[in-house]
Amino acid sequence: MSSIKMSRLLLLSSVGLGGYLAGSYVERWKILDNHSHNKEDYVNDRIDSLVKKVQSKPGLPIFGTVSAASPIPLAEKPLVASNVNRVGQIMKFGFPGLDNVRSYDDYILSYDRRTRVAHWVFEHLTADRVKHNDAVDRSKCDFKPDESVHPFFRSLNSDYKGSGFDRGHLAAAGNHKAEQKHCEQTFFLTNMAPQVGVGFNRDKWNHLERHVRKLTKEYPNVYCCTGPLYLPRKESDGKLYVKYQVIGSNNVAVPTHFYKVVVMEAPDNRLEMEAYVLPNQKIDEQTPLSMFQVPPETIERAAGLLFFDKISRSQLFKINGKKV
Amino acid sequence: MSSIKMSRLLLLSSVGLGGYLAGSYVERWKILDNHSHNKEDYVNDRIDSLVKKVQSKPGLPIFGTVSAASPIPLAEKPLVASNVNRVGQIMKFGFPGLDNVRSYDDYILSYDRRTRVAHWVFEHLTADRVKHNDAVDRSKCDFKPDESVHPFFRSLNSDYKGSGFDRGHLAAAGNHKAEQKHCEQTFFLTNMAPQVGVGFNRDKWNHLERHVRKLTKEYPNVYCCTGPLYLPRKESDGKLYVKYQVIGSNNVAVPTHFYKVVVMEAPDNRLEMEAYVLPNQKIDEQTPLSMFQVPPETIERAAGLLFFDKISRSQLFKINGKKV
Repeated sequence: MSSIKMSRLLLLSSVGLGGYLAGSYVERWKILDNHSHNKEDYVNDRIDSLVKKVQSKPGLPIFGTVSAASPIPLAEKPLVASNVNRVGQIMKFGFPGLDNVRSYDDYILSYDRRTRVAHWVFEHLTADRVKHNDAVDRSKCDFKPDESVHPFFRSLNSDYKGSGFDRGHLAAAGNHKAEQKHCEQTFFLTNMAPQVGVGFNRDKWNHLERHVRKLTKEYPNVYCCTGPLYLPRKESDGKLYVKYQVIGSNNVAVPTHFYKVVVMEAPDNRLEMEAYVLPNQKIDEQTPLSMFQVPPETIERAAGLLFFDKISRSQLFKINGKKV
Repeated sequence: MSSIKMSRLLLLSSVGLGGYLAGSYVERWKILDNHSHNKEDYVNDRIDSLVKKVQSKPGLPIFGTVSAASPIPLAEKPLVASNVNRVGQIMKFGFPGLDNVRSYDDYILSYDRRTRVAHWVFEHLTADRVKHNDAVDRSKCDFKPDESVHPFFRSLNSDYKGSGFDRGHLAAAGNHKAEQKHCEQTFFLTNMAPQVGVGFNRDKWNHLERHVRKLTKEYPNVYCCTGPLYLPRKESDGKLYVKYQVIGSNNVAVPTHFYKVVVMEAPDNRLEMEAYVLPNQKIDEQTPLSMFQVPPETIERAAGLLFFDKISRSQLFKINGKKV
């Protein structure tokens, strides 16, 4: 029996159980606290090519937009041309989805207008880009609404105020230290999600972000995709429900979990992948990060996305530290 | 005080109340049974143009795909060329969103890979297309999975089996009587959502579908957009939550509500709009359809979509039967 099938069986028995149980790989789903997942066998065939046509919207003032189909949009600032090259670097291994894509100078995201939280945020990390830079001062960055999003779907600082949730970065500010502007752009509210502060955003989730940055010491290129999940769980009537809070007058969704799917490119060009799901709640700081590793396919099914689809999984040297 | 503002106030007081209350326009939100909505003032400015770039995916066997950017995709059947024209007719007044757009011969949809239910389904109705046709036999149509959707995100007949929910059409079969094939294509599971059967799909929702068809007697062109909603409601802790069941091994979402936004083009080219939200539950058959009419903006905010965005609202002669 494959470990995937075993984890599915254990998952069934874990539905309704909470807590953080140490143990083997197949028990890691239990960490996802009461939430169940898709239980079907993982289907190995993947769409051969996801056509990479990304929406462009002309006339945005601050940051460029991506378009494979139309010429580079007219921009008020010359940085857009280099930004378009940067898009190609960041998205080298494929777009997880194509809904409302927004490009900033050093990261790309796809915005979910219904939840007011991104579907995914994509970053390309190198040792140079994450190292300390005296010229970058995070304390000068302000959280700000992204006015390129239609006001019906735009999250505001007022939505978070008094909610009890942090404005949690999806693209971590600490990953964007090449320029002050890069750091500042991570403070757009399109890059935020409501996160539990103590024990999550300020602790275990931060540990994961630091782990990803550290990977740049060993791997010249690290590609990181981050996003929310809204996972179902079984209730007392035996049925599965997705349930999440919404905050503020714009009903910003509070994800039940967050994921990170990371690809590391080694000096010999070998590729490795790590995939994590953490529940959006206080997590015991003793729990090792490896306990939150999950098969990437499980995140894909739950998120409705396909990660790194330009790389077939069999091309990967390792997934979650294990040889493929 | 505008009726919109009044309805917002009444809405606040109606949170937590159920039942179907007859009454004035501003009380209609109460019909939405315990579900609250975005409460901000409606913002009048709209994005001037949503760029209409739609994904194309080459090599799909049965139905054409839409692409504004690339040439008409290679097709195995000559009907694709006419289908592309038909896309332009159906989508004449704009795409509500651009996520995973799929075109069939007589309707277009945007598929939500996370919920496994469409974001929206768009139809163009005329008297000719909805009238009885001896050549079309609905009983010969089979519900079938859409294999153009990646298997991770594809809903199956087995997901619905034993769930207690109907496979409810979003594009109604009765709207597509020009050809047997048109009717058959409405049976793709991409066009289905889990709907309560008795009292909803087979009754009040069906009444709404018949109402929309009847509009073709008065208006030469009727454009109909249909989709699911997942509306928040206030729980006993005073907080708002979105909660919906998921069914089957693919976790197909059961929407809390469904919407229809309809634009009618009169013989003198004047445009009118009707917008409805019905809860996905047994509805008293005595409740008149007009009780489910809501301001279209409210659906847009909740769905994360912009309907008929090529028409400014001020161009409409009437909304929900009232002069604009």
